Amino acid sequence: MRSLKWTYIFLVLSVFSSLFAQDQDSVIIKNLFDEALSSNTAYENLRHLSEQIGPRLSGSPQAAAAVEYTKQILESMDLDSVYLQKVKVPYWLDKGTEAAVVSPICGTKIVNTCALGLSVGTGKNGIEAEVIEVKSFEEMDELGKEKIGGNIVFFNQAMNPKRLNPLRAYSEVSKYRTQGAKEAARYGAVAVVVRSLTFTIDEYPHTGSMYYDPSIPKIPASAICTQHAELLSAWLKKDPHLKFHLKMNCRQMPDAVSHNVIGEIKGSEFPDEIIVVGAHLDSWHISPGAHDDGAGCVHAIEVLRLLKKQNIRPRHTIRAVLFMDEEIMQSGGKEYAAVANKNNEKHLVALESDGGGDLPIGFSIDADDPVIAKIQAFEEHLNPYGVYYIKKGWGGVDIGPLKKKCVPLIGLNSNLQRYMEYHHSANDTFDKINMRELQLGAASMAALVYLCDKYGLD
Amino acid sequence: MRSLKWTYIFLVLSVFSSLFAQDQDSVIIKNLFDEALSSNTAYENLRHLSEQIGPRLSGSPQAAAAVEYTKQILESMDLDSVYLQKVKVPYWLDKGTEAAVVSPICGTKIVNTCALGLSVGTGKNGIEAEVIEVKSFEEMDELGKEKIGGNIVFFNQAMNPKRLNPLRAYSEVSKYRTQGAKEAARYGAVAVVVRSLTFTIDEYPHTGSMYYDPSIPKIPASAICTQHAELLSAWLKKDPHLKFHLKMNCRQMPDAVSHNVIGEIKGSEFPDEIIVVGAHLDSWHISPGAHDDGAGCVHAIEVLRLLKKQNIRPRHTIRAVLFMDEEIMQSGGKEYAAVANKNNEKHLVALESDGGGDLPIGFSIDADDPVIAKIQAFEEHLNPYGVYYIKKGWGGVDIGPLKKKCVPLIGLNSNLQRYMEYHHSANDTFDKINMRELQLGAASMAALVYLCDKYGLD
Repeated sequence: MRSLKWTYIFLVLSVFSSLFAQDQDSVIIKNLFDEALSSNTAYENLRHLSEQIGPRLSGSPQAAAAVEYTKQILESMDLDSVYLQKVKVPYWLDKGTEAAVVSPICGTKIVNTCALGLSVGTGKNGIEAEVIEVKSFEEMDELGKEKIGGNIVFFNQAMNPKRLNPLRAYSEVSKYRTQGAKEAARYGAVAVVVRSLTFTIDEYPHTGSMYYDPSIPKIPASAICTQHAELLSAWLKKDPHLKFHLKMNCRQMPDAVSHNVIGEIKGSEFPDEIIVVGAHLDSWHISPGAHDDGAGCVHAIEVLRLLKKQNIRPRHTIRAVLFMDEEIMQSGGKEYAAVANKNNEKHLVALESDGGGDLPIGFSIDADDPVIAKIQAFEEHLNPYGVYYIKKGWGGVDIGPLKKKCVPLIGLNSNLQRYMEYHHSANDTFDKINMRELQLGAASMAALVYLCDKYGLD
Repeated sequence: MRSLKWTYIFLVLSVFSSLFAQDQDSVIIKNLFDEALSSNTAYENLRHLSEQIGPRLSGSPQAAAAVEYTKQILESMDLDSVYLQKVKVPYWLDKGTEAAVVSPICGTKIVNTCALGLSVGTGKNGIEAEVIEVKSFEEMDELGKEKIGGNIVFFNQAMNPKRLNPLRAYSEVSKYRTQGAKEAARYGAVAVVVRSLTFTIDEYPHTGSMYYDPSIPKIPASAICTQHAELLSAWLKKDPHLKFHLKMNCRQMPDAVSHNVIGEIKGSEFPDEIIVVGAHLDSWHISPGAHDDGAGCVHAIEVLRLLKKQNIRPRHTIRAVLFMDEEIMQSGGKEYAAVANKNNEKHLVALESDGGGDLPIGFSIDADDPVIAKIQAFEEHLNPYGVYYIKKGWGGVDIGPLKKKCVPLIGLNSNLQRYMEYHHSANDTFDKINMRELQLGAASMAALVYLCDKYGLD
């Protein structure tokens, strides 16, 4: 009886304490959202990063300025530690691209182009050649050396608008950007022009990474805006022998020294177990990188600010990491994992925001099923804030190298319907950021970090 | 045994036919989304409505042009019937508002204001008076006649940014816009200036409906943009006796004749049972109404186009209704219900889109629980397209009068985080429309209409 009575009391207390804990979680998470929605801190940080610093390709002076600026923000936040982590990064310098289509039949048109990342330049005199338009590698294979040799290959495959997930449409055709130059060079092409990867028909060329094969000659690789891709295609139908002029002034520089920027709140119970919230600080040379990935950077910083503002002393160490050079060699992410490995650091989980600052809708998780189930159990706390999608999926590029150490990886999923319009282009400007949606992204991440920290993932 | 065998065969057939039906539904819904995402029809229709026709307040020539334009679109669609339904509408004419703050201490500043809908004008000479700033009716009550009399009351209550649902924040303070003039007139105020209802601090005044009390003098009512509300408040702290000049050239005209625009696909099995997809065609006089509610209009038209394009012959009659005059007297919605009542029309369900053209996230349903449960059971077909929120809630203003006849009402829920920035202001322009999100809204509605039509709601 006595034992029963104690069991009863224990049960009642457990139920109360569990109800209390749930209620406490609801209150804390509401406070995190309230604070995020009523402060313009993240928004104004992003304004400075996109508008005052602007494009910040790894190795560039602007990337160094972004390191300094975000370090200063973290230093102003009364964190337990703020430091830089040295990273050797590539430095590719692009001083601009000029291109024009010249046709005795259709006329002359200056077209909007940009160099693809890591491309070689054309030399001072540029390249002038006829254009062979293809929609696929297979089509190019059929044409062969005879038709391709000495010409510029124009990869004009549009993203499939029927794909609900824009990243799927992107991944289906991004091979023409990443592999087009080396594949076309096999057939003796002198350069490639790739249709920009966006659904919209507009005037912005979109750059992005591309790769050479050391055994094949390096030819210049450029992107053309969709509006002019359509024009070029239409003109080619009327005048297959029109000429394309391309002048690209870009080249590889010696590797540079840059940094990952790191700020921490020390864990009260498990200071040696780390929760990472990360994003990448670099952006392409033509892009102010407001969405990609300035939004992610201010998300990560804001997570720390929100936790501190609520006086949450986390059990684990919460570490914001702004990775350098995601776009070219992912050297920041690799270096971070290498240092963590060397120091035998234990990571509870790593969370990355690299899908822009639009409305957050969920998290995708790269981890074992039991971990995913544990995170899915947090849904009741996140669903009231519109975070409804918590599923197995992709974590992030920068946190990717932590996977070898079996760290669960989580990516913030934002609404991506508009994302490709900005991605890797001069159109990725601060005015495309909505303050409330940006704030909601940071609060969603802070809520998830709070729950992972409190309940662990075992 | 024989009976068992037949039962078994029946069961197997049932399972197969049910699986087939499910599979068929998935295929049809995918086709609806595919078609929506690969056509710019809705987007280009909206471009014309917002940019070529523009602001279209009920009674105005532009409203008549919008009736004619949308009727022509419907007539071009090979529908079973297209017609106009006559509606008597109010016609309030606003020829513009001018306002300035004049202070010997702070300076002179022209401020951005607009008349609130149905307000009386100020007369040619305008009004000049001192300003009493209040945050609430209670604060005004405390000041009383002595302080308020002869002055302009400035309602400067901001929307609470902590509200996750912007409509909640809006509904908390919209009373100052709708009731401010009559409440202030009780204390002898000569005019009111109301802070615009938006979270952002910007230069756009936002109008909207307001109401007089016949027993209280009618005083002019205006809205001021948030940027200048902040400025006025700051100046008042330095100079409580500054003067506000307000000149409003607006007046009530005789009622006008306008129309609801209606297009139908006749039902094959139940031609006399109607599924309405609706939106309102009018917009405020200062607003091109791209989101409010041009987006809803092209959503409704697009639903018919998508169903026809897929050769879906619906069992029930699908009727797109573009209601006139939602903004002032809701006369289009009232007239539609009155005619339906007179003709003993049976409505299966009425669906409205009046929350803008941003990302669709769900549907809210104003109906009995069993009907809600039936619609929630469709979620498996909608969830893959991001439609995750299907709950009891608000249907819509225009379809509202059908509630008396127990018609289930459904409102499309779009992401509203940006909506208040555009709402009832000159900022509600076509460039704020994202084509893919607009297309997804139409496809989500078409999918729901398809499911309601196929499975009924009993």
